[in-house]
Amino acid sequence: MRVITSIKGVRDEIYKSDDPVGFIPTMGALHDGHMALVSRALLENATVVVSIFINPNQFDSNGDFEDYPRDNVSDLGKLKKAGVGIVFTPEVEEMYPNGFDTYVDIGKIGNLLEGKSRREHFKGVSTILCKLLATIRPKRAYFGQKDAQQCLVVKQLNRDLDLGTEIVVVSTVRDSNGLAFSSRNAYLGNDEKRAASVLYRSLVLASDLWRQGERDAKKIRNRMRDLVNTESIALIDYISIADADNLQELDFIDRRALVSLAVQFGKSRLIDNVIIGGLVENTRN
Amino acid sequence: MRVITSIKGVRDEIYKSDDPVGFIPTMGALHDGHMALVSRALLENATVVVSIFINPNQFDSNGDFEDYPRDNVSDLGKLKKAGVGIVFTPEVEEMYPNGFDTYVDIGKIGNLLEGKSRREHFKGVSTILCKLLATIRPKRAYFGQKDAQQCLVVKQLNRDLDLGTEIVVVSTVRDSNGLAFSSRNAYLGNDEKRAASVLYRSLVLASDLWRQGERDAKKIRNRMRDLVNTESIALIDYISIADADNLQELDFIDRRALVSLAVQFGKSRLIDNVIIGGLVENTRN
Repeated sequence: MRVITSIKGVRDEIYKSDDPVGFIPTMGALHDGHMALVSRALLENATVVVSIFINPNQFDSNGDFEDYPRDNVSDLGKLKKAGVGIVFTPEVEEMYPNGFDTYVDIGKIGNLLEGKSRREHFKGVSTILCKLLATIRPKRAYFGQKDAQQCLVVKQLNRDLDLGTEIVVVSTVRDSNGLAFSSRNAYLGNDEKRAASVLYRSLVLASDLWRQGERDAKKIRNRMRDLVNTESIALIDYISIADADNLQELDFIDRRALVSLAVQFGKSRLIDNVIIGGLVENTRN
Repeated sequence: MRVITSIKGVRDEIYKSDDPVGFIPTMGALHDGHMALVSRALLENATVVVSIFINPNQFDSNGDFEDYPRDNVSDLGKLKKAGVGIVFTPEVEEMYPNGFDTYVDIGKIGNLLEGKSRREHFKGVSTILCKLLATIRPKRAYFGQKDAQQCLVVKQLNRDLDLGTEIVVVSTVRDSNGLAFSSRNAYLGNDEKRAASVLYRSLVLASDLWRQGERDAKKIRNRMRDLVNTESIALIDYISIADADNLQELDFIDRRALVSLAVQFGKSRLIDNVIIGGLVENTRN
């Protein structure tokens, strides 16, 4: 496994490697969700590149950026064991050198849900993903369905800027209580972790209600809200039922819909989602 | 010569072609300035790709876009005769399909000079150039020094988004009166064309004054202004003497400086420039 820190270095290494190239951009603190992306990429590509880069431009505050979990030794061990060929671990100065002044502005899709709660977040995400896709030029790039809006953002970015990559979305990986793996779970105490399973329970509730014929989005949102609020430490940021392609909020569920929510548990703001009314996950763009 | 209208088609054709690939993005109405870029690219690359695409997003008004000179038959004849291998001529719908919603926002460098006079211009330029460079993935892309600020914008874009292309800037080509070739010269009547040679005369004046030891930018600007104003039909938009790398206006010329101006002659708004205080042109980034 080659660990490379420069853009030129990783380009040269990829140039020497076999096609097709599969790519997984990460911010490290790798968990089973990331490793599911890696496994999928290893199945489908001759060369797999994983990037580990904690992108300062997509954090709301400097504190959140500085507190983000980092464990490079453990991460590299997991990737090596999985059989990854190339790991790209640039420093901030490599990605944002002095004089850096260009941003990719994703339109409407970046201003809803997470974009509403976290100003500038998706501008940072789309800029770094544009840079990484332009550097790696993979045939396929892999993203987790847990970050559903990020999946839509990267699809839009890739399509609009002709980056020429196939965006592969992989199902959310959950623990035995249904809690989706997330690097931010590291901040959860035991009680918070137990309480946080209400995210998934509320999504299962929404899915069940839909299957029973409920199509009134407001009714489903209210039932989810009531359930989440049974956990006294849960602070709801949003509960959304939206068109799964453009994230416009729905009143009546007459199409493929993304049911998503963001809830604060102690120090951790967690998100999760399911898709109802259509093929569930594992979609390709 | 293959003329290709789809992104997928041009990608497939380039994939089959020999490396290295040289690329010249144009809006058609090809003149000797464009053909100098083509000649240079043919010397340096195994495969040369020219795009012809009048990008609606970089025009200030719909009228300017609609009036922009178009002559595809003549353009294709010139490119074929020169020995170009691939011409990419997408329709607007191919580059901006329904739902397109992503823009590349170049920072400070895009808000000065032409960016001040022509709001949104460089956002349109940097977005289309990002798309074209991502589609063609050339080893080298060629731009004319006449559009000096565009050269800086594409260098910044290419560097910041890691597009991996070498940006080659080629000297301005002028007619016997010093008038720089420009597609917008097509709108000039004979009197206007004669008057427009004052652009270059004013740049030569600036260059001479600098060579004679003048370092006061304001004095040089004033002398240029007086000269341009001897042509009664000339309407000055701006005369600038700025740091050649970041376009910050200079008081005292103590570095490589871009002397540039924009002047309206009848229907045509023309721009021109020279660099003083350093290597003149043909720079590579």
